[in-house]
Amino acid sequence: MHLIESTDNKHFKEIKKLKEKKYRKQFGVYIIEGLRFVEEAMKADAEIEELIIDESKQSRFEAVYERIDDSKITLLKPSLFNQVCNTENSQGIMAVVKMSNCGNNIDGSFYVLLDKLQDPGNVGTIIRTAHAAAVDGIIIREGTVDIYNDKTLRSTMGSIFYTNIIEDKNLEVINQFKEKGFKLLASSLDTDFNYYEVDLNGKIILVVGNEGNGVSEEIYELCDLKAKIPMPGNAESLNASVAASIMIYEKVRQNLSK
Amino acid sequence: MHLIESTDNKHFKEIKKLKEKKYRKQFGVYIIEGLRFVEEAMKADAEIEELIIDESKQSRFEAVYERIDDSKITLLKPSLFNQVCNTENSQGIMAVVKMSNCGNNIDGSFYVLLDKLQDPGNVGTIIRTAHAAAVDGIIIREGTVDIYNDKTLRSTMGSIFYTNIIEDKNLEVINQFKEKGFKLLASSLDTDFNYYEVDLNGKIILVVGNEGNGVSEEIYELCDLKAKIPMPGNAESLNASVAASIMIYEKVRQNLSK
Repeated sequence: MHLIESTDNKHFKEIKKLKEKKYRKQFGVYIIEGLRFVEEAMKADAEIEELIIDESKQSRFEAVYERIDDSKITLLKPSLFNQVCNTENSQGIMAVVKMSNCGNNIDGSFYVLLDKLQDPGNVGTIIRTAHAAAVDGIIIREGTVDIYNDKTLRSTMGSIFYTNIIEDKNLEVINQFKEKGFKLLASSLDTDFNYYEVDLNGKIILVVGNEGNGVSEEIYELCDLKAKIPMPGNAESLNASVAASIMIYEKVRQNLSK
Repeated sequence: MHLIESTDNKHFKEIKKLKEKKYRKQFGVYIIEGLRFVEEAMKADAEIEELIIDESKQSRFEAVYERIDDSKITLLKPSLFNQVCNTENSQGIMAVVKMSNCGNNIDGSFYVLLDKLQDPGNVGTIIRTAHAAAVDGIIIREGTVDIYNDKTLRSTMGSIFYTNIIEDKNLEVINQFKEKGFKLLASSLDTDFNYYEVDLNGKIILVVGNEGNGVSEEIYELCDLKAKIPMPGNAESLNASVAASIMIYEKVRQNLSK
């Protein structure tokens, strides 16, 4: 356990860098905030590289200390802690967690593709739903909001630790999936084909499009199936995380009714 | 069209009061912000009591002017406009809209009850989903976040204008519904009864519980049916608006497959 009191401290500067996406990516780690989130990470056996604690609130977290190697605990002076932490009136605890990207192992038969979603809350909520539904993995297309930013992580409610994340660049991963026999299914407003009439058995990737623009052209062209979530009330559209959840859960329902 | 330049102006003080729930309730009106939202209100034939425009941006909104009675247009000096408007970098247009509560007319057979939800985004998103699904009305239980606050309204994406809102106090409305033969159905983690095995035909109210605590005891006791949304991935719970949407859309699916 060591205490940092100066903003000039080299290690403090490294920690602060993790507020930026490019450094999170470079180091392969991200920051979670709050006691409940840290406990969730421990419960999920996520790899905690470092525990960061507000020195003035140190005594509150003894129960957490005991379970972490002493060399991995950093105390920060309150003013320094607040420079890193996004939460107002923070509890005084954060952790640096290793990303557990699974590489490009393609197991299972049920994936969700996020096609340039921009709202962190939507992305976090979809990860949470995917975890509940036992989705085998989430493919994140370039141009999607960073899933390791604070808001997205919070919206996952801990499901980030249980979810297989696969990052796609230049459609490479998606084409690999297609070669392995996966079918891409997008919801679209341009078809009258009812989503509930689609047989979701077999290897499938459900595509979730951007909040404002829907599924991108490149992905739309790769899609094997297009179907519409029925809207008998004639609303213009659904929230992206709601549409994703309806699609994901129809697969859960079909699996259960087999 | 009249211009207000002083914060001492009596009418300005009245407008400002509408930022508070109690005055919105007292006057039976609420404020919407932004051009798209105002246009949506017009399209939906919502009753616009007043159009409020940032005087410095007046010229942008000529197309909107033409469609509103001149006596109903108020111009505000920019500094005054910003005292009322919640949006940063606002477009410069707001409208005061009359609440269209339908009283306690009970038509149709498909309602959703919000039982003390606290997150404005969740409530707005549920209203949007309910509109898409042609729900007959939403019953708002006392203790639920105000649906006419800015964040909730924005999350409805205009669906607020198409949704029947019924406010319940002391369970009176809910008991009226029960007397008319409606069945209350709550999702619950305490049962193993699979939600997808429930027959959702007939007069039904789907209950959506609070984000942290779920369905309240009082409502739980009134429920005729309790069922669990299956979570094969063993997540602890779903986001409240996601759970609501899954429940609502299973009813849509069952209706379509009749």
